[in-house]
Parts: sequence; C-alpha cells; structure tokens
Amino acid sequence: MDLKVVAENRCFGGTQTVFTHDSQICNCEMTFATYLPPQAANGPVPVLWYLSGLTCTHENAMTKGGFQEHAAEHGLAVVFPDTSPRGAGVADDEAYDLGQGAGFYVNATRDPWRSNFRMYDYVVNELRSIVVDNLSVQDRHGITGHSMGGHGAITIAIRNSDLFDSLSAFAPIAHPTQSDWGRKQLSSYLGDDESAWVEHDATLLLEEHGWKGELLVDQGASDQFLDLLKPEALADMMAKRRQPGQVRIQRGYDHSYFFVNTFARDHVAWHAARLS
Amino acid sequence: MDLKVVAENRCFGGTQTVFTHDSQICNCEMTFATYLPPQAANGPVPVLWYLSGLTCTHENAMTKGGFQEHAAEHGLAVVFPDTSPRGAGVADDEAYDLGQGAGFYVNATRDPWRSNFRMYDYVVNELRSIVVDNLSVQDRHGITGHSMGGHGAITIAIRNSDLFDSLSAFAPIAHPTQSDWGRKQLSSYLGDDESAWVEHDATLLLEEHGWKGELLVDQGASDQFLDLLKPEALADMMAKRRQPGQVRIQRGYDHSYFFVNTFARDHVAWHAARLS
Repeated sequence: MDLKVVAENRCFGGTQTVFTHDSQICNCEMTFATYLPPQAANGPVPVLWYLSGLTCTHENAMTKGGFQEHAAEHGLAVVFPDTSPRGAGVADDEAYDLGQGAGFYVNATRDPWRSNFRMYDYVVNELRSIVVDNLSVQDRHGITGHSMGGHGAITIAIRNSDLFDSLSAFAPIAHPTQSDWGRKQLSSYLGDDESAWVEHDATLLLEEHGWKGELLVDQGASDQFLDLLKPEALADMMAKRRQPGQVRIQRGYDHSYFFVNTFARDHVAWHAARLS
Repeated sequence: MDLKVVAENRCFGGTQTVFTHDSQICNCEMTFATYLPPQAANGPVPVLWYLSGLTCTHENAMTKGGFQEHAAEHGLAVVFPDTSPRGAGVADDEAYDLGQGAGFYVNATRDPWRSNFRMYDYVVNELRSIVVDNLSVQDRHGITGHSMGGHGAITIAIRNSDLFDSLSAFAPIAHPTQSDWGRKQLSSYLGDDESAWVEHDATLLLEEHGWKGELLVDQGASDQFLDLLKPEALADMMAKRRQPGQVRIQRGYDHSYFFVNTFARDHVAWHAARLS
C-alpha cells in the first residue's frame, strides 16, 4: 500500500498530514487528511472520523473546522476523508450535488458511477484499515460529519455499530429518501428501486435499528437548507424510538463552517467521553 | 459612508460579517471582515486588528485563524482588513509579492501604485474610523498580524502608539530593509531613497522609538521563510533596546495557518489582558 505524504504541518503540538494513495475500492487516487494529537507520540489514540458535505474535499474541515485544538486537548486523532473519487477518468456531473464532490457515502450500482463511486466501502473498510495500519491509533472509532457528511456519519455508524462507538452530526441530511438532497443522488447511484435507498436514510435506519449509544445532533435554526435537511424527521423518530441523545436547535446559526466551528468543541468532547 | 454587508454568519454566539465600502483613501471598493463577540450586545468592546500576509484577502484568517472562539471568550472585536486595494482599475504585478495582495501597509508614492496603494492610511485612519463609527466597539485597539501583516502590525503600532495599546505578531517580516521581502516592495512603492523605508522596518523603528508596552512575537522554528523574515534582527534589537516582551521560537512549526491557529489563543489573551 503506497501511502504518500503530500503535506505535513505542526498544529497544536500534533501533526496535520495530507496523504494520497491508490484506492482499490474507488479505482483511482484518493486524498485524505489526518490529525494526530500530541498524545499519539506516547501510544495509540482513538479515532474521530469527520465526513464532509457537498462540494467539499478533505481540506475544508481540516482548515476551517477547528477540530485540531479540541482533538489535541482530548487526545483524539481525526480523519478527514474526501467526499468522492476524483480525477479526469472519473465520472462527473455538471451539478454541484452529483458526481465528484457528492459521493453521498454509498456504493453506486449504476453506470457511469459504479466503477468509482464506492465511498461507503471506502470509508468503512479500505480507509479505516489504512488508518489503523499506518498511524499511531487504536482500532476504536467515533464518527461525525456535516450535512451530506452528517448523513454519512449516522448511516455508517448505525449499519456498523460493531466498528463505531460514538456518533454525532452537524446539520445532517436526515431523511434523504424524502428530500431533493437524496432522491436525485440515490436514484442516480442506486437506481429507481427505492427499497435499496432505505439503508442510506438516517431516519429510516434509526427507526429500524436505533443506535446503540447516545446521538448528538446540532442544527442551526437559521440554516438556509432546513427544507432539504429535514431535521424534524430525525427528531421525531428519536422521540418515537426513545433513542437516547439530543437534537440541539441552535438559534441564529446557518449551514456554514462558522456553525461547525462553533460547536466543534462540544462534539469532540462528546466523542472523547465515549472513546477514551 | 456606504457600508454594505456582503455576508453575515453567527459564530460563537457573536457575529462574523463581511463588508464592502468605497474607500476614499484607496480610491476603489474595499472589503473587510469583522467579528463582534456576544459581549458587544451589552456595550462597546475593545478591538483587535489582524493584518494578513502576502496573497491573503480578509478571508484567510477569518476562516482559518480560529480567532473568533477566543475573541468570544475574552470579549474582543476582531477586524480583518484586506491586504491591498483590488479590482480591474487597480495596478498589479504578475509576482505574488507585489501589487494586489501585497500592499505592505505603506502609502505608495510612486507610479503606478500611488493612486490606490495606501494601506497604511487606510488601516490607521479610514478603516479605524469606519469601525469605530459603525460597530459596537470602543476606540481602544490592539494589533497583530502574520508575516507581511506582522510587519504591518509592529510598524503601525510603534508609529501610532497613541492609537494602539497592545501589540503582537506571528512570524513577522521583521527587517524588510534587509530582506527580499521588503527591498523589492519598498523600492517599488516608495522609490530608491532608502531613508523613506526606515519607518516601515520593525527592527529600525524599535531601535529608534521602542514600543510603549510589551511585545509578543511567535515564530516557528521550521518556518520555510526564516531567511526572509529575519526574526534574529528583531530579537537582537529587543535585547539591545531592553524592550519588554518575548520572542517565542516554537519548535516544529512552519509558516502556515496551522501555526497561526495554534497560537491564536495566546495572542487574543495577550491583547485582552492589555485592552480590557
């Protein structure tokens, strides 16, 4: 496995690194970033996964989220995957919300997507193995994400509760089978049989399986995409299901990284309390 | 004065805003950003100025510096000016370190720069008045900055010690009259008479005037631009001059925003202790 270091910077006493590697799952070169806190020098630390939203690469949260400061305080590693396969040989669409930058954390079964767009297997299996095998980390994981990445975090954690021990989300796409952020992508990547979509819908997965731990969701009350995110579906299901956790509606906050940055401290502490 | 709000985001309980306005000093539209902490809702707060480095706009530190969290804790406003005039009608150069994005915080006296490149007067007078007149802030100021912006912070504070009450810098261009980050720009903007450069050299100004308070400088030991920044000239002058303050050489850190982000907390606390 040929892991290349593209950039490395000292940050809060730890190390922020950007890697590329040839992905067997996505059939192209993939980029991801990791933050190792100072504590990793003394032994393996737990891992927090941060999945990003539409249009993002590994870089947005790495530079704008402010997670490193809190990860250094709590002794967590953070992994920032890209949001899709990329490159000239990879299928794409002119829309911002389909194709490159919009992998939706599914394994595509339809052309032209299926040969590369396998972000579900990439995150859960390939990249997790790479991180555990190559960095000073424990095979002990929490997962969070923003928007499309919040959708990815919740769906991946519920479907792999043996692999993930803590879960939170920032403004997740909470009910994609009933949203234009979801129906378009799920039909393109998985086809029109909606029974295949259920395992990629946070609200439906929660109804079916629940989540073994507590779930923390932050949602800005002034989010410009509330109609697409549908936090009310998730909150309603949490209440019906008696799912332990909390949905916090944050007055005045929108969908931007200023929102993520503001609540990053709480989410890192949330995961640290459950992973450490 | 026609101040337009371009963007506004809730952030750490306060408000992050981007403004544009027609600058009388720079003869073009200028952009700047401000962060008002939650405390500003209860009355005017002191102001911390953050001057950015080469190639930056108002946006880099606003999104990557992490200052808002600490400003919210301490009750400081933060102002993020642009680093130069900009636009199709404004002179420029193909090099990244001259013209747009590289104003160097001087008042240019040479063509083609002198009609727009007046960042010294813009920051010290025009933008300071705009901020004080339009926001819930006190006319009480601290100033910091990174690289070219650290040069701007030190030179502006020493020359205007009646207007600024606290001072720090991240990896400042410390001795531009003896550096390729300086000689090129000062000769282009001010001409070849080097006597006009002295008032834009932090080390020479410190020798001549000292700084009324204490000076905090952070410098990464692995900064890729050490030969251009010349921190040893400033440290040497501080020692000769018995200038109160400290130059901290930070092991392993480079010139990036990961370095700024790491030490932003200390700098905001430094200014808050002297302004509040």
